[in-house]
Amino acid sequence: MSEVLHTLDGWYVLHDYRTIDWASWKALNTEERQSVLDELLTLLREWSSVEEQKKGSTGWYTIVGQKADLLFLNLRPTLEELGETETALNKTRFAEFLIPSYSYVSVVELGNYLPKEGVDPYEDPVVQNRLYPILPKTNNVCFYPMNKKREGNDNWYMLPMEQRRELMKAHGMTGRKYAGKITQIISGSTGFDDWEWGVTLFADDPIQFKKIVTEMRFDEVSARYGEFGEFLVGSRITEEQLTKYMEVG
Amino acid sequence: MSEVLHTLDGWYVLHDYRTIDWASWKALNTEERQSVLDELLTLLREWSSVEEQKKGSTGWYTIVGQKADLLFLNLRPTLEELGETETALNKTRFAEFLIPSYSYVSVVELGNYLPKEGVDPYEDPVVQNRLYPILPKTNNVCFYPMNKKREGNDNWYMLPMEQRRELMKAHGMTGRKYAGKITQIISGSTGFDDWEWGVTLFADDPIQFKKIVTEMRFDEVSARYGEFGEFLVGSRITEEQLTKYMEVG
Amino acid sequence: MSEVLHTLDGWYVLHDYRTIDWASWKALNTEERQSVLDELLTLLREWSSVEEQKKGSTGWYTIVGQKADLLFLNLRPTLEELGETETALNKTRFAEFLIPSYSYVSVVELGNYLPKEGVDPYEDPVVQNRLYPILPKTNNVCFYPMNKKREGNDNWYMLPMEQRRELMKAHGMTGRKYAGKITQIISGSTGFDDWEWGVTLFADDPIQFKKIVTEMRFDEVSARYGEFGEFLVGSRITEEQLTKYMEVG
Amino acid sequence: MSEVLHTLDGWYVLHDYRTIDWASWKALNTEERQSVLDELLTLLREWSSVEEQKKGSTGWYTIVGQKADLLFLNLRPTLEELGETETALNKTRFAEFLIPSYSYVSVVELGNYLPKEGVDPYEDPVVQNRLYPILPKTNNVCFYPMNKKREGNDNWYMLPMEQRRELMKAHGMTGRKYAGKITQIISGSTGFDDWEWGVTLFADDPIQFKKIVTEMRFDEVSARYGEFGEFLVGSRITEEQLTKYMEVG
Amino acid sequence: MSEVLHTLDGWYVLHDYRTIDWASWKALNTEERQSVLDELLTLLREWSSVEEQKKGSTGWYTIVGQKADLLFLNLRPTLEELGETETALNKTRFAEFLIPSYSYVSVVELGNYLPKEGVDPYEDPVVQNRLYPILPKTNNVCFYPMNKKREGNDNWYMLPMEQRRELMKAHGMTGRKYAGKITQIISGSTGFDDWEWGVTLFADDPIQFKKIVTEMRFDEVSARYGEFGEFLVGSRITEEQLTKYMEVG
Repeated sequence: MSEVLHTLDGWYVLHDYRTIDWASWKALNTEERQSVLDELLTLLREWSSVEEQKKGSTGWYTIVGQKADLLFLNLRPTLEELGETETALNKTRFAEFLIPSYSYVSVVELGNYLPKEGVDPYEDPVVQNRLYPILPKTNNVCFYPMNKKREGNDNWYMLPMEQRRELMKAHGMTGRKYAGKITQIISGSTGFDDWEWGVTLFADDPIQFKKIVTEMRFDEVSARYGEFGEFLVGSRITEEQLTKYMEVG
Repeated sequence: MSEVLHTLDGWYVLHDYRTIDWASWKALNTEERQSVLDELLTLLREWSSVEEQKKGSTGWYTIVGQKADLLFLNLRPTLEELGETETALNKTRFAEFLIPSYSYVSVVELGNYLPKEGVDPYEDPVVQNRLYPILPKTNNVCFYPMNKKREGNDNWYMLPMEQRRELMKAHGMTGRKYAGKITQIISGSTGFDDWEWGVTLFADDPIQFKKIVTEMRFDEVSARYGEFGEFLVGSRITEEQLTKYMEVG
Repeated sequence: MSEVLHTLDGWYVLHDYRTIDWASWKALNTEERQSVLDELLTLLREWSSVEEQKKGSTGWYTIVGQKADLLFLNLRPTLEELGETETALNKTRFAEFLIPSYSYVSVVELGNYLPKEGVDPYEDPVVQNRLYPILPKTNNVCFYPMNKKREGNDNWYMLPMEQRRELMKAHGMTGRKYAGKITQIISGSTGFDDWEWGVTLFADDPIQFKKIVTEMRFDEVSARYGEFGEFLVGSRITEEQLTKYMEVG
Repeated sequence: MSEVLHTLDGWYVLHDYRTIDWASWKALNTEERQSVLDELLTLLREWSSVEEQKKGSTGWYTIVGQKADLLFLNLRPTLEELGETETALNKTRFAEFLIPSYSYVSVVELGNYLPKEGVDPYEDPVVQNRLYPILPKTNNVCFYPMNKKREGNDNWYMLPMEQRRELMKAHGMTGRKYAGKITQIISGSTGFDDWEWGVTLFADDPIQFKKIVTEMRFDEVSARYGEFGEFLVGSRITEEQLTKYMEVG
Repeated sequence: MSEVLHTLDGWYVLHDYRTIDWASWKALNTEERQSVLDELLTLLREWSSVEEQKKGSTGWYTIVGQKADLLFLNLRPTLEELGETETALNKTRFAEFLIPSYSYVSVVELGNYLPKEGVDPYEDPVVQNRLYPILPKTNNVCFYPMNKKREGNDNWYMLPMEQRRELMKAHGMTGRKYAGKITQIISGSTGFDDWEWGVTLFADDPIQFKKIVTEMRFDEVSARYGEFGEFLVGSRITEEQLTKYMEVG
């Protein structure tokens, strides 16, 4: 067995993508729509309040293209609390106008951690900020899941730890070039969902998503060992923008 | 032909995942919902009574993410009795508010068994406990199906038996590290469903699912020979929790 | 071009899997359900009568898991007569409560046949029994489609005929161990459906499906050259059992 | 770059597969069904009249298995006229009882053509008959799409032209053995649909589909370089047969 | 890490494919259909006006085959404006008769750009015309997404930059042969959608799509490194043609 790198695990993460059933939504009258929306906004405010208390984080986004219309992104300390965000949304009247389109379950992960004797990393405030992050309030969001390949000579899990660490280090150097332009949350999903990791990127200019993912694809760790799932891209919305987004006729 | 390892087969297993049609559920009035739920609870109690009589086992879970909302997990001595659990659920009124989302048919398997002359392993109480298990009452459950690869130089089924046994033994050593944290039920599904095995993990802390599956992925048997299907993760629920889960407006 | 092995072709085969729309079925009153079921039973009896006249064969099964609820398995001398079984079922009122879930079109095949000069194999009663089989009345049925691989060094269709014949012979030896436990109908589907063969297994104990498919997977012909599709497993039902199966509240 | 073989292109081809919604169809009364069918027959006669004027060709078929119930196969000189056949069908009332199940867009192709100086092949009557074919009125039809592989050492598009030509020639020899039993229309779909070619086979005995596709699979060009999509098989129907096919209770 | 080639990024692109629900459309009376269509035409005219102001571009097409009926193709300076085209369409009454069938998010890309010191390429009018293109008013359109392969020895992202540049140059030479017959818009989608690039081809004769894609597939860069997604082909329509297309009985 190759030696396993230490990882630290933080908050659980649910990417909850939904598509709007506009025909049914339009069939409501203006008052009903307002009432349904008010109930949703109440839930979103509860989620914001959880974030204010640093007991989780929350973000809402519109998604471009037919894969989804909305993303509700929630982070919570436990899997049960995470599931409750989904159930609470499902029970709103607003959910009657939503079609589930995609979801992803993972946990914020700090990989390649080098343990120091006598030190509990979970007490380190820098580590805490990375494991229990408040979602950046940037304009745009990008999500994709990924695996490390296990095919013939390109088998990540058969590499010696030292080689894996070096490949990841070089990868990290590419990432550092985007400091100030891109914030990245890596979450692990081995055992939770169909890929091994989820990557959530935040930026004020979505062209940076294309630049960083393209540049990183030339890193050996991605070129030889990366397998990528679907990509979803969108824009953060405030309560006001959501209200405007849902306005019809 | 490579020599085949002996396996022992126990109870048949059905993982029966369902998604709730919340809009229709909410369209019922409170009394109707209670009556529909009562009928479901009656069925769940019948299943519990089968477990009490050690003629099978049963577990109910909520699932996180859009893959499913509920998992009904049943073990029974025969394929026919297993099918009857599914049909009984289908015939409840509650099923009118469920959308089938995923299922898996398998049989509890004790692999790598070394037969001893003159000994019927099925009479061994230790073996019996593993082949006819009562599902652990842990907080969380994780399921995934898997294959052994048959690709180019990574062909499990072309390896000599001794090598397979050694690879599995090393894999077992990794598993043993999680004693007390993870309970694992391996079920075989060759001939029954689309993958060769199903793995059901039980733990009181779901982070252990991530840890064990990640660590095992570095074992050569997984790194080179493992192929993994979808992962579904959730939380065990009692009657009371299910009742609360189904409460709306 | 590698030399092609001779095959003999018998009856056409349709595996016609359906899922029951229980909610609509339950919406009927008892009399309506009886009337709809009577119409179905009339069709099933026509199919049985075709079997009695040795002009085809027929079997009905319940399937375990969400892939399907029912399998209608029909064999007929021509593709047109085969299609008529499907259309006749589609035109029953019962079909209004069925959702198509999977189907497979193939023709019973006797492979590896060694032609003898001056002998018409189709006149041989042993051959006839295998090409025009009456479906065994065993308790259980298992179906899966399969291909022979054409990947890199594992390319079945590039092997010399003699090697293919020897690999198949060894495979046949594995099969023979299950005489009396498993009856197997091999049907070819190259040109008819998405895989090259369909395998239908019959047994009184479904654990035999797992044992034979597992053991055969270690034969070089499967280990290196087999590609397998979905597996569906179920139980044969009589008219009485079908009537009971469809009974609701 | 490997040298490209010349091809000639003829009529555009649309395979338009549909599934019947029998429940809705049966909900009509006999007169309504007749009226809906009459409107369809009027369209089919228009298509026949196009064929009589040699401005295209048309064929209608029932399909066996759940992939589809009907195939409307049309050939037209331009992509726009081809699209109009689909739109005309969509606008009939009959289409309200059809569910789209599969379609394929391609253009009749004469491959491996050796251009002769000063000769316009499109003026050659033999070439014309092959590029602008009237569909054979055989009993049965088989369709499948295919690619030439580009994997590792099995990369068709990296082979020298001479080798490709020889492999195709040997393949053609296999095809010639089926003269009188099978008529084949090859259509190219690179740039039009998801595979590189569509193959439509016509025969009076469908067993010939199995024989030719199986035998050809042993040709090196298929064994090493062929990738195959789904196969759909069915029977040609006349107006009378279609009318009978649509008759219900 | 291989050195990354410079690319320039222009307008964001949304391919928005929809299928018409003809049954519901026909259920409207003539006046209602006209009113719904008028509302759509108003939106299309707004999009045309954006194009006239060179603040984006727009094109509408009918698609052949069941993959889709209509394509709304829009280019906009920002991801947010791009998303607004989709939302505006979704909010029309016409959208109630449309089923989403496929979409693709990308950004116009000028690859292999050689930066010159002291020169801002975005100020170059030739570059501007390519990054902010007005869609050609040709008869036909073809779209497909693609990746560069990362498999074993065929790993584009592990090639030295010089080799990549040469392979792309040879590819460009093939493209140049089609000058005057084909206009090509390459858009990058790494980080935005499931493939790395989208290719949109415009021609007055759709047979040119088949010719160029086939010829290019023999270029080493495609033969060894190209992976292709689905292909969709159709015809540009004017307001009048769209009105005619939507006319029913």
